[in-house]
Amino acid sequence: MSSFVESAKRVIIGRPIRSKAAARQLLPKRLALPIYASDALSSVAYAPDEILLTLALAGSIALIKSVWIGVVVACVLAVVVLSYRQTVHAYPSGGGDYEVVTTNLGPSWGLLVASALLVDYVLTVAVSISSGANYITTIVPHLRGSEVPIAVGLIVFLTLVNLRGTREAGTAFAIPTYTYMFAIALMVIVGFIRLFTGHLPMAASAAYEIQASNAHVDGLVGLGGVFLLMRAFSSGCAALTGVEAISNGVPNFRRPKSKNAGITLLLLGSIAATMMISILVLARRTGVQMVDDTSKVFLNGTPHPEVHFAPVIGQLASTIFGDGSVLFILVTAVTGFILVLAANTAFNGFPTLASVLSRDSFLPRQLYKRGDRLSYSNGIMVLAVGASALVILFDASVTRLIQLYVVGVFVSFTLSQLGMIRHWNKRLRLPQNGGERGKVLRSRSINIVGFMMTGFVLTIVLVTKFTHGAWITVVMIALVFGIQRLIRRHYDTIRGQLRIDDWHARRALPTRVRALVLVSNLSKPSMRAIATARVQSPTNLEIVSVVADLDEEEHIRREWDESGLPVPLTLISSPFRDVTQIVKSYVRARRLRSPGEMLVIYIPEFLVRHWWENLLHNQMALRLSRSLLRIPGVVVTIVPWKLGEEAEVEGRQSVNDPFKRREAKERA
Amino acid sequence: MSSFVESAKRVIIGRPIRSKAAARQLLPKRLALPIYASDALSSVAYAPDEILLTLALAGSIALIKSVWIGVVVACVLAVVVLSYRQTVHAYPSGGGDYEVVTTNLGPSWGLLVASALLVDYVLTVAVSISSGANYITTIVPHLRGSEVPIAVGLIVFLTLVNLRGTREAGTAFAIPTYTYMFAIALMVIVGFIRLFTGHLPMAASAAYEIQASNAHVDGLVGLGGVFLLMRAFSSGCAALTGVEAISNGVPNFRRPKSKNAGITLLLLGSIAATMMISILVLARRTGVQMVDDTSKVFLNGTPHPEVHFAPVIGQLASTIFGDGSVLFILVTAVTGFILVLAANTAFNGFPTLASVLSRDSFLPRQLYKRGDRLSYSNGIMVLAVGASALVILFDASVTRLIQLYVVGVFVSFTLSQLGMIRHWNKRLRLPQNGGERGKVLRSRSINIVGFMMTGFVLTIVLVTKFTHGAWITVVMIALVFGIQRLIRRHYDTIRGQLRIDDWHARRALPTRVRALVLVSNLSKPSMRAIATARVQSPTNLEIVSVVADLDEEEHIRREWDESGLPVPLTLISSPFRDVTQIVKSYVRARRLRSPGEMLVIYIPEFLVRHWWENLLHNQMALRLSRSLLRIPGVVVTIVPWKLGEEAEVEGRQSVNDPFKRREAKERA
Repeated sequence: MSSFVESAKRVIIGRPIRSKAAARQLLPKRLALPIYASDALSSVAYAPDEILLTLALAGSIALIKSVWIGVVVACVLAVVVLSYRQTVHAYPSGGGDYEVVTTNLGPSWGLLVASALLVDYVLTVAVSISSGANYITTIVPHLRGSEVPIAVGLIVFLTLVNLRGTREAGTAFAIPTYTYMFAIALMVIVGFIRLFTGHLPMAASAAYEIQASNAHVDGLVGLGGVFLLMRAFSSGCAALTGVEAISNGVPNFRRPKSKNAGITLLLLGSIAATMMISILVLARRTGVQMVDDTSKVFLNGTPHPEVHFAPVIGQLASTIFGDGSVLFILVTAVTGFILVLAANTAFNGFPTLASVLSRDSFLPRQLYKRGDRLSYSNGIMVLAVGASALVILFDASVTRLIQLYVVGVFVSFTLSQLGMIRHWNKRLRLPQNGGERGKVLRSRSINIVGFMMTGFVLTIVLVTKFTHGAWITVVMIALVFGIQRLIRRHYDTIRGQLRIDDWHARRALPTRVRALVLVSNLSKPSMRAIATARVQSPTNLEIVSVVADLDEEEHIRREWDESGLPVPLTLISSPFRDVTQIVKSYVRARRLRSPGEMLVIYIPEFLVRHWWENLLHNQMALRLSRSLLRIPGVVVTIVPWKLGEEAEVEGRQSVNDPFKRREAKERA
Repeated sequence: MSSFVESAKRVIIGRPIRSKAAARQLLPKRLALPIYASDALSSVAYAPDEILLTLALAGSIALIKSVWIGVVVACVLAVVVLSYRQTVHAYPSGGGDYEVVTTNLGPSWGLLVASALLVDYVLTVAVSISSGANYITTIVPHLRGSEVPIAVGLIVFLTLVNLRGTREAGTAFAIPTYTYMFAIALMVIVGFIRLFTGHLPMAASAAYEIQASNAHVDGLVGLGGVFLLMRAFSSGCAALTGVEAISNGVPNFRRPKSKNAGITLLLLGSIAATMMISILVLARRTGVQMVDDTSKVFLNGTPHPEVHFAPVIGQLASTIFGDGSVLFILVTAVTGFILVLAANTAFNGFPTLASVLSRDSFLPRQLYKRGDRLSYSNGIMVLAVGASALVILFDASVTRLIQLYVVGVFVSFTLSQLGMIRHWNKRLRLPQNGGERGKVLRSRSINIVGFMMTGFVLTIVLVTKFTHGAWITVVMIALVFGIQRLIRRHYDTIRGQLRIDDWHARRALPTRVRALVLVSNLSKPSMRAIATARVQSPTNLEIVSVVADLDEEEHIRREWDESGLPVPLTLISSPFRDVTQIVKSYVRARRLRSPGEMLVIYIPEFLVRHWWENLLHNQMALRLSRSLLRIPGVVVTIVPWKLGEEAEVEGRQSVNDPFKRREAKERA
């Protein structure tokens, strides 16, 4: 890496951190909660919106069902949180669902879970960031229409923060997450006080009438109505993502890791459920409305297609605190901010999971190691690129992205619960005392309930969203799964080929070595290459030069005569002026004539001091060596010559060069 | 080069041609004329237009001077042709003006001429192609507005044709050039017959009235008028470019080269002069008008700013043969076609000149050699890129580009004539008989007239066009000149550094060799690298491995114990996980400890079969070797291992590998 790139990296990313320091980067609960909870908590910034939006397809009247949908989502959340507490205690190593499923259902199912989670992490970033951009344009309406560049810019920002490392990210994210919780709590409390004292006003959007779309003119009755309710529920389930992040992140917690992680999980679940239900209740009581297709919006009987409804939290804040008030701006701004930070959960989870998969040879090696700052740099980059692509493709629209969402995380939930059931079954087969057995039985029943619940939700999500976009997620998961299988097969093949079973044979040496020195003339770099070849005492040695015409031939012959070198010179004439091809044929021929010999090819290389100097030289050496290396039985030695090196060395007095020292002696 | 790129190249460019075949690619006069004349002849497709356009700045009335300007241009052309016949005979080697000036006025003036010509070649392509695009949109008005993409597309096409080689280009270009000459001759003859029989109608544009621009309301009187006449003359001088191309191309002619080139030059001059004057006379008689600023165009007193005038030849053809007639389309189409092919002169001249300059170390080496097909591939590419840039920057506008044109070629003309005068002066100092002396004196007087004439024209061109764009050309020539001086200095410095003055010292060998084998584990590729190092019997040998943690350390120690290798193992722990930096420090330390030793570093490299497999491996070897080579006194040997190689070799029976053969023996 050039020194400029290197310095720029240091300024942006920070100085490298030692591997041993990894142990010190552990998170206390007060930092772990904001890092891992931001995803789940922030989803109340868009999950209620999507519930209302979906219900509004059956007209304003359908919104009465919104609170009940919220309650059902909260129930599912409670079950999932309880189920995952089991996982956190049973598998504290941070493999999370991947480890649970691999251990209990086998590696193929484990890989499926991992693929689903990888896809869902990318979607988490895309959805959260898009929603965040939406809040930013609520505060600054001037920016409306620039959501895509805003979102991509935010992803780049998050990438840089995360490349700096986990601990600093934690500190940076704790304050806004707590501010967010406080702001929403304040809004909810003030809202309920005003509700019970009878001073709660109606929201601005309550005045509008939303007509049912053509597909749902009958409202919520019949099969269509049930389907719509289920779709609204599916979108609401976005609030559940992020729960699994804690089970993947157990090793990042302070000791006792499992216990701390379990407590954080419970906290997270309660806060998220409370927030969502409170917001839905207040939205209902203030008559907040949301709509996707504005052509269905009427005011006193006349259509208002140019209407724009702010996100639910924004509408509530302006209703409860007054439009444009300081508290309205605080709530909206901090919500937008928290959404951006929510994507950070995925920036923790994705690279960690990718590293585990890389360790198991399902993903390229480059994803395995931590970067300079102990974060998994390559994984962070992959996530950033994937999420940016989704944001651009789906125009930063939360409503369109939410159709793809949640599938992956529920695949993971369901299989993970099944794995846990197997895990307890295995435990039950071991001898243990009564008390312990009772605990295991209780744990198993929690996971059985969890399995049935999440499996049922997964079915609902797939059925109601498949044609609206979930099929894309299914295809993505299948692709990620398939590619990982292929990568694993590749690594397995290589491992088999490289393993040594006969050390004796491998220690054997070739008996004869032929050295070829490729030169274009006998300048100082060439003479150094020839000296290097001679000092290694090969069985045979020849100087080889490609000449284009008689002039060149005579020139090098004259130089060779002058040089007095005790080494034969072979000249190859090149009618096609292509040096690489002709050298390759010559080397191939040499190999065929004496297949028992090892062939070492010495190539002098001219190293320039500035990149632009490369434009002034035919840099044959590198290309030629890459090409010759592909001939079996050939080894290539590059003998460098740095421009200006001799002048430098001579100037510096201390002749730190074996060639120069020797020359000095010879001269003396 | 990958085999796909290679095959694609074969299909587009053709099979490689032997160097010796160069002699066979010589041109008979009937092919040389179209190749070298297309530039000069095609310029009558825009030179008259620019004369009329410039005069029209003083209003319609000023157009009466157009024929006289044409006659003056023809006179200058005659003088230049006669002067260059001297050059062709005196310097048949094809160095052209560059050689003439370098030999007689010294290398700095020669380099100035070369810089001017290089710039002018690029402008020739840009102007001709832009004008060609203009003719194309005359026939297909639908395409109007897409001149830039059309022009760039044509440059790409020409590049491919020229990469295929000179001879085929000649054949492909002869037919259209002759068709063009025939078509213009037919138009002129029919035009004059109709003129003398009194049946010549007026052109459509004759009906319009062009008002003088604000700067020239007084018409052609006074200093402003003289200045405008001189500017029109300067633009008309575009007809003279291309004459020097023949003097640069003498070696491409059949024997007797000089004589054939001289005859071709005379033919070219006569045809170009005849064409231009005929067209200007007919344009005058049919009242053809051209205008740049359409806001000055009036019809019966009302402004017609939306008017569009076709090029002069297009207008003449439609007047003489009838608008939309077959002959009108033939003349316009073939003119457009010939303009495109005219750029081909530069595609011959530029790379040849660049190759000569490269030989003299003024341009990078890469421009020196011929490509696969005996054309100078790199030079062709540089020209294509430069011309495309100009076309894009100047929006394919001939009127804007013509302001930059002609400067370079007249710098070259003037200095070349001065050089020729010196040449004859030197000859006069040698003893010779009276007849010869008379010939030399006659030649010298031709060149003296040529020098004065071209010098005067250069002054007019610079004065009248400087602020309109010629200053850009002056800057470009100065830059090209300066860059070439720097390149030459760079090559001279290196040549000095590499030259060997003491062969004895250069034959000296280092006394001790230390070998380091860098491995990450002891797999088959590593064992091969170790064997390669051992067989070269270094003074010291060690295996070096970088380990990130204790697990890795134990693993490699166990392998090493198992291997039974009689070579010490050095482990370096890497707290920062950065292998390259740590290896570099280790090697630097080793070099400092024993500066008298040569250090050979062996690196096993894993070669994959498909490019995408690179994504699955940390390709450290290449990066590491590039980095280590920069340490003084270090030599790097790459020991390759091709994935699947062993399986292949074993399958093929003939064990064509020194390692395998030896192993087989050891096992037996």
